[in-house]
Amino acid sequence: MVDESKVVLLGSGFSMFGMRAKIALEEKGIKYEYIEQDLTNKSLLLVEMNPIHQKIPVLIHNGRPICESLIIVEYIDLVWNNNPLFLLSHPYQRSQARFWANFVDQEVYHVSRRVWSSKGNEQEMAKKDFIESLKQLENELGDKPYFGGNTFGFVDIALIPFYCWFYTYETFGKFKVEKECPKLITWAKRCMQRESVSKTLADGKQVYESVLDYNKLILD
Amino acid sequence: MVDESKVVLLGSGFSMFGMRAKIALEEKGIKYEYIEQDLTNKSLLLVEMNPIHQKIPVLIHNGRPICESLIIVEYIDLVWNNNPLFLLSHPYQRSQARFWANFVDQEVYHVSRRVWSSKGNEQEMAKKDFIESLKQLENELGDKPYFGGNTFGFVDIALIPFYCWFYTYETFGKFKVEKECPKLITWAKRCMQRESVSKTLADGKQVYESVLDYNKLILD
Repeated sequence: MVDESKVVLLGSGFSMFGMRAKIALEEKGIKYEYIEQDLTNKSLLLVEMNPIHQKIPVLIHNGRPICESLIIVEYIDLVWNNNPLFLLSHPYQRSQARFWANFVDQEVYHVSRRVWSSKGNEQEMAKKDFIESLKQLENELGDKPYFGGNTFGFVDIALIPFYCWFYTYETFGKFKVEKECPKLITWAKRCMQRESVSKTLADGKQVYESVLDYNKLILD
Repeated sequence: MVDESKVVLLGSGFSMFGMRAKIALEEKGIKYEYIEQDLTNKSLLLVEMNPIHQKIPVLIHNGRPICESLIIVEYIDLVWNNNPLFLLSHPYQRSQARFWANFVDQEVYHVSRRVWSSKGNEQEMAKKDFIESLKQLENELGDKPYFGGNTFGFVDIALIPFYCWFYTYETFGKFKVEKECPKLITWAKRCMQRESVSKTLADGKQVYESVLDYNKLILD
């Protein structure tokens, strides 16, 4: 049972999606309980709270579950609607924020996994596609401090957790993101100056070690 | 060049995603120009308006493109914000609407394609998964007139275009959705009483003929 007066977050390991929810909670200054989930042995709580996908993150608020990271970020923004908001109210700006957050989920995430889970030619292709997707994001960022303009917002929250995975992509793929996308690295360092981000993102080398362990498990 | 004073929709054939945008425009009573796109020979306009994905639908408003069907539906709801709104403002209800609309995109769409594009055991699996996904939706609908309650909204717009594909899934898969999910069919017939839906949805047999032609093209 979950204490209904509490805000609870179900997350797991180094998941970028779990980190998004944490950053949003931290940005709004919300007190919450974090419950780590073992995805190889799913808890009754997780299955009960997200019966359809049985995935993290799940935010539990007033005893009710909200699933999927971008939906959680919007929910937090609507409930704790102190300014600045993550999602701008202007319809066009809002549509663009959704477009680029979806781009991170649909393109960047899938191709980034292939950088460390494939070999040979397939890995070369993945590396090329990954860098291309980051360049498209860098182009969208342009010279703005954050994706939405002057304030840290929806697309920043969607993308910044990948930053602590860069060491993994770079080590497996033998490349440097900074060389390809210097402005994106400047943006990431700007985000890291926020306590919400720096206290949430994992250490890059720890992420890499966990991926090495995971790959061994899969190959054995 | 697109006339900036006009609302323009780029769509193609029997795409469910294009139909979503049309239904939203019709519901709000917006005058728009529809420009059919040939996806086998993409127009300069499409490439210019959606350089990242080069996909339909694209809504062009004030000369600026809005891409992806669910983003377009939200954009229309925000700009032409006469009641009733497609997306309810209550944070929890809104999160649930997004969850089920995403479910249609992530689950229903992919598995529905496999019903007509696969054979043998793979098709049997696809049929089983497709029916299961519809049952999950039917369970969410329950005894409500529409997914969000008493008014036609976001999830209804996301799902109803699939209704004109049911004849195709049923004919390829040799099953009847109505036998499996009678409440969902009652809901679909309720939606079809709306002019926005009935004038947008294609004829089921025409969809089937086009899928037969497409499959022949792929197999030849």
